[in-house]
Amino acid sequence: MKQETFAHRRVLITGGLGFIGSNLAERLVGLGAKVVVVDSLVPEYGGNLFNVVGLEDKVRINISDVRDEHSLRYLIQGQDYLFNLAGQTSHLDSMQDPYTDLEINCRAQLSILEACRKYNPGVKIVFASTRQIYGRPEYLPVDEKHLLRPVDVNGINKMAGEWYHILYNNVHGIPSCALRMTNTYGPRMRVKDARQTFLGLWIRLLVEGKPFEVWDGSQLRDFTYVDDAVDALLLAAASETSNGQVFNLGGERIISVKDLAELLVQVNGRGDYVIRSFPSDRKRIDIGDYYADFSSIRSVLGWQPKIPLPEGLAATLSFYRDNLEHYL
Amino acid sequence: MKQETFAHRRVLITGGLGFIGSNLAERLVGLGAKVVVVDSLVPEYGGNLFNVVGLEDKVRINISDVRDEHSLRYLIQGQDYLFNLAGQTSHLDSMQDPYTDLEINCRAQLSILEACRKYNPGVKIVFASTRQIYGRPEYLPVDEKHLLRPVDVNGINKMAGEWYHILYNNVHGIPSCALRMTNTYGPRMRVKDARQTFLGLWIRLLVEGKPFEVWDGSQLRDFTYVDDAVDALLLAAASETSNGQVFNLGGERIISVKDLAELLVQVNGRGDYVIRSFPSDRKRIDIGDYYADFSSIRSVLGWQPKIPLPEGLAATLSFYRDNLEHYL
Repeated sequence: MKQETFAHRRVLITGGLGFIGSNLAERLVGLGAKVVVVDSLVPEYGGNLFNVVGLEDKVRINISDVRDEHSLRYLIQGQDYLFNLAGQTSHLDSMQDPYTDLEINCRAQLSILEACRKYNPGVKIVFASTRQIYGRPEYLPVDEKHLLRPVDVNGINKMAGEWYHILYNNVHGIPSCALRMTNTYGPRMRVKDARQTFLGLWIRLLVEGKPFEVWDGSQLRDFTYVDDAVDALLLAAASETSNGQVFNLGGERIISVKDLAELLVQVNGRGDYVIRSFPSDRKRIDIGDYYADFSSIRSVLGWQPKIPLPEGLAATLSFYRDNLEHYL
Repeated sequence: MKQETFAHRRVLITGGLGFIGSNLAERLVGLGAKVVVVDSLVPEYGGNLFNVVGLEDKVRINISDVRDEHSLRYLIQGQDYLFNLAGQTSHLDSMQDPYTDLEINCRAQLSILEACRKYNPGVKIVFASTRQIYGRPEYLPVDEKHLLRPVDVNGINKMAGEWYHILYNNVHGIPSCALRMTNTYGPRMRVKDARQTFLGLWIRLLVEGKPFEVWDGSQLRDFTYVDDAVDALLLAAASETSNGQVFNLGGERIISVKDLAELLVQVNGRGDYVIRSFPSDRKRIDIGDYYADFSSIRSVLGWQPKIPLPEGLAATLSFYRDNLEHYL
């Protein structure tokens, strides 16, 4: 990817006040892009105006919901790139209120794509999908040939949302691709609760000097630092080879949840956690071990995670030591 | 399956005035079940009151739409079995109006399952899924381990609808399974147009003495006669082993579309067809050859197709020679 790829290009980011969206917006501003961020600021989701402090004069902020067909129809026009990151991400919320998840993760995705088809069919779209759609792995590491067997409503709807994008690429020629992201972490992540990932809540409690809970702890996972995730989004956008493709992201190491807790405390210099068994409502949708085979995006787009876990955790802890109050 | 399995049992069939639903209702009445059929009679779909002529006093007919949460919430209560067959099935309609397809094939399925969860969590559900969700096969015959790569909005939404059923089985304990049906044909199929399958339109034109169109013709397919499909639905309902499972159906032979045209004309005793190339709007969503590996349902439930294609086609042609006027 050339440095100038995004210079003076028009970029729309849905979910742009959220964790990954705001990190992406900041990077794109640095690359000279004209960035519009769209966000609903629904309190339960990841949008937070503090995420763009310092960027207010460099991005255009448009508060609207992806379920609002009219605003998206207008905003999509004339854009060169759409990073489609808005979504409901909570597994438990999706089980308690499947309709809201459906509206955001399916219907709104369809209406965004329909708007592109009608008003801007040349826009390049990168969709933020999730490893959650694989469900419980049959084999490890999980590559893109693994069957999708989602274990919650959120996973099913995200699966559909991903496939709408691939379909609109294949049938309507709107250049689209999807990244199946896994446990992204870093500054600006949601730490108020575990809606995005348990790691956010751990970091909050650690910074607050309180013990955090590790459920079971033997599960293996991989984690992507947000700067690496942003690299992947930009590489996918800049490439035509990515069109119609789905790529796993992954982490630079595989680690058990318990070892992650240890590492986090060690990087922080102090802190406590307790290990408890899985709550029954989570156990039913637990997927056991998961880590990704990301050799496809490595070979096709040249992406690989660069930030070592201790470094990424240190940067994240440092951010929340300074800024926690804005995320509660 | 014992003959008495369904005697005096309460059965709800969504899409029960449609092709497969009405054939199933008739069979269940013969087995002594108390059958309620629900159908919206939306003209573009398969529901047709003529399908239950002679059964009016033996089934309860309730005209309502699966998108109507309130009627379904009432109707589901006290049922022992739910055959969930209502759906939007047209691939082209789903591409022109993705929202309606979403409402029927996703949102309504969620609301049916939510109603079961709240008011009748013990009801056994058999969901009519479709081989369409596989998309273009990577290998043949296609078994249930094949990746799902749908090629139209309908396929994506049916994929989600199927997975909601599996999820509600796995997480909420509502005993559910899904059958991936393939090119079901027989008396009461929709013949007005090609919305269910091209074969319906062929049969109509043949009975009307008009030539029908074969697109390309080299594609391989398999076909399930409706009595065989009904067998599979009943076996799946009667079994507990089926819970949480997805099964392919298939046909007793693999045949090219052109050879099917020949066979149909031969069984009919006369008729003409023309071979033309694929229309461009269909070509983009054509899947090439498809036929199913149905060894899973054969080994788990003991199902296999019994009716030879010539016999099934003859019965279908005979039905429409007598009844075509009711299907136009």
